[in-house]
Amino acid sequence: MASIKPSVPKGTRDFSPVEMVKRNYIFDTIKSVFRKYGYQQIETPTMENLSTLTGKYGEEGDKLIFKILDSGEYFNSKSLESFFNELDKGLLELQDNTNFEVLDSMYNLISKYNSAETDAEKIAFHDDYEKNYKLIAPKNRLVAFNKLTNNISEKALRYDLTVPFARYVVQHQNEITFPFKRFQVQPVWRADRPQRGRYREFYQCDADVVGSDSLLNEAEFVLIYDEALGKLGLKDFTIKINNRKILSGIAELINKADNIIDLTVAIDKLDKIGLDGVTKELLDRGFTETDIEKIKPVILLQGTNAEKLQSLREALAESTTGLKGCDEIETVFTYLQSCPLQTATLELDITLARGLNYYTGAIFEVKTNEATMGSIGGGGRYDDLTGMFGLKGLTGVGISFGADRIYDVLEELNLFPTTANQTTRVLICNFDKEGETYGLPLLQQLRRQNVNAELYPAGAKIKKQLDYANNKNIPYTVVIGGDEIATGLLTFKDMSSGVQEKLTVAEIVDRMVG
Amino acid sequence: MASIKPSVPKGTRDFSPVEMVKRNYIFDTIKSVFRKYGYQQIETPTMENLSTLTGKYGEEGDKLIFKILDSGEYFNSKSLESFFNELDKGLLELQDNTNFEVLDSMYNLISKYNSAETDAEKIAFHDDYEKNYKLIAPKNRLVAFNKLTNNISEKALRYDLTVPFARYVVQHQNEITFPFKRFQVQPVWRADRPQRGRYREFYQCDADVVGSDSLLNEAEFVLIYDEALGKLGLKDFTIKINNRKILSGIAELINKADNIIDLTVAIDKLDKIGLDGVTKELLDRGFTETDIEKIKPVILLQGTNAEKLQSLREALAESTTGLKGCDEIETVFTYLQSCPLQTATLELDITLARGLNYYTGAIFEVKTNEATMGSIGGGGRYDDLTGMFGLKGLTGVGISFGADRIYDVLEELNLFPTTANQTTRVLICNFDKEGETYGLPLLQQLRRQNVNAELYPAGAKIKKQLDYANNKNIPYTVVIGGDEIATGLLTFKDMSSGVQEKLTVAEIVDRMVG
Repeated sequence: MASIKPSVPKGTRDFSPVEMVKRNYIFDTIKSVFRKYGYQQIETPTMENLSTLTGKYGEEGDKLIFKILDSGEYFNSKSLESFFNELDKGLLELQDNTNFEVLDSMYNLISKYNSAETDAEKIAFHDDYEKNYKLIAPKNRLVAFNKLTNNISEKALRYDLTVPFARYVVQHQNEITFPFKRFQVQPVWRADRPQRGRYREFYQCDADVVGSDSLLNEAEFVLIYDEALGKLGLKDFTIKINNRKILSGIAELINKADNIIDLTVAIDKLDKIGLDGVTKELLDRGFTETDIEKIKPVILLQGTNAEKLQSLREALAESTTGLKGCDEIETVFTYLQSCPLQTATLELDITLARGLNYYTGAIFEVKTNEATMGSIGGGGRYDDLTGMFGLKGLTGVGISFGADRIYDVLEELNLFPTTANQTTRVLICNFDKEGETYGLPLLQQLRRQNVNAELYPAGAKIKKQLDYANNKNIPYTVVIGGDEIATGLLTFKDMSSGVQEKLTVAEIVDRMVG
Repeated sequence: MASIKPSVPKGTRDFSPVEMVKRNYIFDTIKSVFRKYGYQQIETPTMENLSTLTGKYGEEGDKLIFKILDSGEYFNSKSLESFFNELDKGLLELQDNTNFEVLDSMYNLISKYNSAETDAEKIAFHDDYEKNYKLIAPKNRLVAFNKLTNNISEKALRYDLTVPFARYVVQHQNEITFPFKRFQVQPVWRADRPQRGRYREFYQCDADVVGSDSLLNEAEFVLIYDEALGKLGLKDFTIKINNRKILSGIAELINKADNIIDLTVAIDKLDKIGLDGVTKELLDRGFTETDIEKIKPVILLQGTNAEKLQSLREALAESTTGLKGCDEIETVFTYLQSCPLQTATLELDITLARGLNYYTGAIFEVKTNEATMGSIGGGGRYDDLTGMFGLKGLTGVGISFGADRIYDVLEELNLFPTTANQTTRVLICNFDKEGETYGLPLLQQLRRQNVNAELYPAGAKIKKQLDYANNKNIPYTVVIGGDEIATGLLTFKDMSSGVQEKLTVAEIVDRMVG
């Protein structure tokens, strides 16, 4: 073991002090804006019951849930016995032929074998047994594995923050004041194949309000994006907005309400593959040339948001749902006239679909125009979040910030502040025990004034101490040698400019506090 | 599903908005003090490789590690195949007779059976097989289970922050500037039996420095406890300090250096069971009456810290190690004379042992004297933290804050601040759409001034809006009705006193900012 350098599981990361300062900067900024808008923080456990998570993310999502072994409970002989009983029970229940059913068959065989009267009977049982074995196919093993893991795992790591939030709302519905505006910043885990920019452990940063259908909430989420990303120093970014009801209206326009998914998946690609590409894809997905002619003007909508909205109203004049969508968008725009955006551009983009099955009203997505990067945020309204846990009729709307991507953008644009109060401001260096002792009261005075300060323990070479300051990005050092102690004037150095001055203890404290 | 109220796994907790404000207050206070003393934050992944964690916490600890199923990797047919190959391999390796070895034997049997020439041969194989089966005993199943889970689990949830920190230091040793002062505040997981005050998921809050043997570090940890707990409002708490070398010296005093664990386990109980109890326990553990007579004066040490230290020096005069321990304690005391404690009492307590196997120098423990509560913090020096990962000779010292217990103490003593900037300060209420529209500019002005503010969406009864403010502990409300709009004088209400005033928008902004 000693010779193998330890590592972290693939897809997970350590965060160094330098990275933590930057990550905290992003999270603290976003949190402060959430709070300013009345959102309250909650935290939910890392582990949720498997029954809470399973079936909420589709078949593909379920496969990516990290399950936790019930190790603790099964590691004494009594509970171990119960584990094997469970396992046996699970095996007996299996109808498919599986690796584990072999074990089951074997149990049966043993018992039949024991009661067999003749050698011929014994062989007959065994031939039966082998016949079963040959039916075992790898695909059936999945069933066996699921059965097995369901018996040894009843908890899993949270896959997102939305389902735990829904569970929280239902569980605590009697303690909650609605509308409930909550934010949550915690890691989630997905057993995805790790690749550049995709991790198995990553933070989500969500705000949602449930129990209010006012479109003021939608408008405020636009403001939150504007304020938070503006505060982080982004100068050019676009908040795209759409509405599921407009997409429904477009599908109704060609009498294909049932094909809305196919429609939106295709037009969502307009940016990437252009109109010809979208046309081809729509034809492939069973839409007619006539359909495409009819919706083309809508897809190619031009002009200001107001102009687009006007054109949409005309195009969707016969769809009640479509017009409702236009009304909703317009209400959001009206709210935002009273509270104009500071930095962001707001763009009505009817090709925006995101997780369409999920959203029932507004749909949001945020993109920076200063760096090549996918969306750095998104969200929308959903009408039945808590229905999965039996609480019907609670409408909600929420947004999410893509913290890892925002980190990369700020890094690329050099937007992280150079001075942060999270790091040491001054290092007191010394040559010997006497210097160390002399430095202690200065150290205490600085800390009393809330200046982050360190004293390098006596006994190290001065070069090592200054290297320490440089490596830790400590902006100022104080050196205490024999001369300094004799005169009471300490050497105060600005590490970035290299300028040195002789200052008294009081002057140094003033300098650092001021 | 719909009818069953969802819940969290046992031993885990949701944290409500009110709890989060209090928890953040504790963590932010402690973090700010860590930073003031030059400690830098890191974070490590929730999941560590099983090989990183296993064998570091003793047999009992290992059982409490939550293992994670390799679900993601095994849920496609190819990887599922490889899972079963691994499983088969694991089974073949089993030497004990287990439930799973039956499966293994069966595989062998099948193959032998297939190549058998006569019926007699077939039966012979099968009889062999059954003989094996009869040897299966429940206790052997544990081995099988371990084998099995090692094949389907290669990751586990972090059990503490210390081992991941050691792993971090070794993995990143070339990027780290030593001495490395790091702090870490993250949850850990233990499959303990949940009970009052003991959770399966809880936060640890640690600071450690590695790569410096200066006792200034020990002195600074005492200062950190003093400052952080003082800042949290505790007024009477004791930081106990001891040194492993003093305990070694006491054991040497009676020529029982090898029995140091037995010795310290017994005298550690002095507080609880008194001298008679300790005497009985020492006798039970094989110490003689003579031994006990000899160490009694040391156990019953009285007086100031200086007096105790003097008595110890006399008692341990013949133990080099013991005297070294006294020197170390004295050095810490000397440092602290230059930087006197503000709130805490420092007490030399030679009965303090904690995780003795672990510590090699100073040992710390903190207790509040204002509430009945176990230790709210502890730590010490360890000389070979990173040795477990092959990096020898790095000495370290660290402390931990017991956040959950501190929470309970602050709650009991009513020490949480009533005003926190984490919550909404003012709610703007209205009767209708017109009031809502009128309120929007006020809302924006307040937020521009960094006042956390909300506007209740139009359409709700005023009583509901005021209840919302009360339930969310919002201290001020503004009510906008027809009169208010006509006169420009809005109703501003202090929710705790009930006092109402008529103020202009500008006056309200001033009031909230001032």
